[in-house]
Amino acid sequence: MASKTNSLEDFRKNREMMNEKIMDLNHLGIKRFFNLDHNTYQDGALPAQTKELLGLVASAVLRCNDCIDYHLEQCAKSGSTKEEIIDALNVAMVVGGSIVIPHLRHSISTIEALEEEGLL
Amino acid sequence: MASKTNSLEDFRKNREMMNEKIMDLNHLGIKRFFNLDHNTYQDGALPAQTKELLGLVASAVLRCNDCIDYHLEQCAKSGSTKEEIIDALNVAMVVGGSIVIPHLRHSISTIEALEEEGLL
Amino acid sequence: MASKTNSLEDFRKNREMMNEKIMDLNHLGIKRFFNLDHNTYQDGALPAQTKELLGLVASAVLRCNDCIDYHLEQCAKSGSTKEEIIDALNVAMVVGGSIVIPHLRHSISTIEALEEEGLL
Amino acid sequence: MASKTNSLEDFRKNREMMNEKIMDLNHLGIKRFFNLDHNTYQDGALPAQTKELLGLVASAVLRCNDCIDYHLEQCAKSGSTKEEIIDALNVAMVVGGSIVIPHLRHSISTIEALEEEGLL
Amino acid sequence: MASKTNSLEDFRKNREMMNEKIMDLNHLGIKRFFNLDHNTYQDGALPAQTKELLGLVASAVLRCNDCIDYHLEQCAKSGSTKEEIIDALNVAMVVGGSIVIPHLRHSISTIEALEEEGLL
Amino acid sequence: MASKTNSLEDFRKNREMMNEKIMDLNHLGIKRFFNLDHNTYQDGALPAQTKELLGLVASAVLRCNDCIDYHLEQCAKSGSTKEEIIDALNVAMVVGGSIVIPHLRHSISTIEALEEEGLL
Repeated sequence: MASKTNSLEDFRKNREMMNEKIMDLNHLGIKRFFNLDHNTYQDGALPAQTKELLGLVASAVLRCNDCIDYHLEQCAKSGSTKEEIIDALNVAMVVGGSIVIPHLRHSISTIEALEEEGLL
Repeated sequence: MASKTNSLEDFRKNREMMNEKIMDLNHLGIKRFFNLDHNTYQDGALPAQTKELLGLVASAVLRCNDCIDYHLEQCAKSGSTKEEIIDALNVAMVVGGSIVIPHLRHSISTIEALEEEGLL
Repeated sequence: MASKTNSLEDFRKNREMMNEKIMDLNHLGIKRFFNLDHNTYQDGALPAQTKELLGLVASAVLRCNDCIDYHLEQCAKSGSTKEEIIDALNVAMVVGGSIVIPHLRHSISTIEALEEEGLL
Repeated sequence: MASKTNSLEDFRKNREMMNEKIMDLNHLGIKRFFNLDHNTYQDGALPAQTKELLGLVASAVLRCNDCIDYHLEQCAKSGSTKEEIIDALNVAMVVGGSIVIPHLRHSISTIEALEEEGLL
Repeated sequence: MASKTNSLEDFRKNREMMNEKIMDLNHLGIKRFFNLDHNTYQDGALPAQTKELLGLVASAVLRCNDCIDYHLEQCAKSGSTKEEIIDALNVAMVVGGSIVIPHLRHSISTIEALEEEGLL
Repeated sequence: MASKTNSLEDFRKNREMMNEKIMDLNHLGIKRFFNLDHNTYQDGALPAQTKELLGLVASAVLRCNDCIDYHLEQCAKSGSTKEEIIDALNVAMVVGGSIVIPHLRHSISTIEALEEEGLL
């Protein structure tokens, strides 16, 4: 399913390009928020791996596919297995209800793309 | 702050009483959902401790104090430290924004009550 | 559980008093919205009874106890039975997830109060 | 507007394919949730037709186009007329506000597709 | 980036076409809501320019790209500068959290399209 | 209505006390977020007065009474009149729907308390 891999790759490129444009706005508050956001997922009292799972579940119950895709990749890179990611998404579905299911479907597509890339 | 301990205790009693009344409704779908919900936080691909942190963050970004209180207690009982819980709530605040802050304040009150009870 | 009946009665009085104050603001847009909101639940292509169930489920998944209480009473008055109301709340819980459960507990309290008043 | 019919058909195929992949994950909790979700809309204290309208309104106020499309089709199949569906969507718009309007526009497209297919 | 301009133009055309279809439904409640919605942003105690910024921030924290695009254009037309719009979006991001960031990225695209059209 | 004034005063004291406890946690990410949040409402491309109205509307559509109370006071202190605040809340109600009405009722109570204190 090369098309899906491309779709994830398109998301990454678009995300990076738009984030650069946002930085170029030179709005101090926005810059600081982006920096704060990035630091949130570094090792702290909780390891980065757990925090990425938390970010994934928060994104899933708030139903944002872009955020889900970003955290799915970070979950994979920080060492979570596919089974652990699915188990986290199950928590999101139970807390957030059937309205989360379309985002579970989306997640499976992205997980497939990450598997094809060898990241998961 | 004994009053806060009482408040947490009141929440527990009311929660248990109302859950029993819900079971007494004898609605099969509701009963099954409650059972499913309970099983969600058992050890699986992810340990119960991690799942409770996921439930806490999902509850915080969806901004439900009752759900937060329940998961705070379960986080404590499943072995998370205060520092880990605070780190998880920080993720919730960054993902969910300043609108989560009143729930962070609420969480601190409940964390104090759990500390007084020796659960955290 | 007289206290609960009083609590529902307090809600009604406070709601009516505050709505009058809102009308007294004399903001044309707000007045028109309140009028529009009232008309929404009149018989139309769907009967009022069904629309009140729709309003109840919308209120439950959006997790607003005041709105739930209002529509629970309207559901009772427009002819829905307790069993039908519980079945509607089950739909809300499945769509909206476990985060809806505290509002299910709240609903049961209000349903009890409506039963004591002979409205349900 | 054949393209729209195709779009609805694409949604159905993709939904079915992804749901099968989700079942293939063999996660017991997810499987049970999907089963529970399916049973929620069967005849009970309320008839399936009413429950599908409840599912539609819940989906609309929570603003999920995939969920809206699914329930629109189920509403049509369980016997609701276009006028009744529009009346239900009006309740959703009033409860959920103007933020629901883009989903009303989306619904109209899907309703047209269902009409072309003879389902509505 | 002509493609983006086209995309904004496509959104406008589709929005107008679908709104006409909604009016053609001849549902009195829906018609009145659309009229009420339109009047909300006229000069009142607050000038239209401020109200459009309010509509933009409300749309951003509720995370609706179509609503964001509409209000971005209205903000530009009612006299807000790009810097003011960015400052408003920053408020939305801080209140609503990192989950708003994908909508900030979307907003930047639309702002670029409005600049190319000479509207901003 | 002295009791309401006391209620607003209670909110302020509790908010300040809990915020101090949050600072005492010494979590760098949380501290930075609080600082960032505070700076968001300072004069920038938009004046503080407008930003507070934006914060109020964001809080109202996200339905957080504590956030509404905080921004209502800041709106009053930064120079908005009661009429302007009501006009902003009307935008919130139209965007967010009837589910916002209970928070409009709450806002009226707080506005009364601010009037009694001479802040509005």
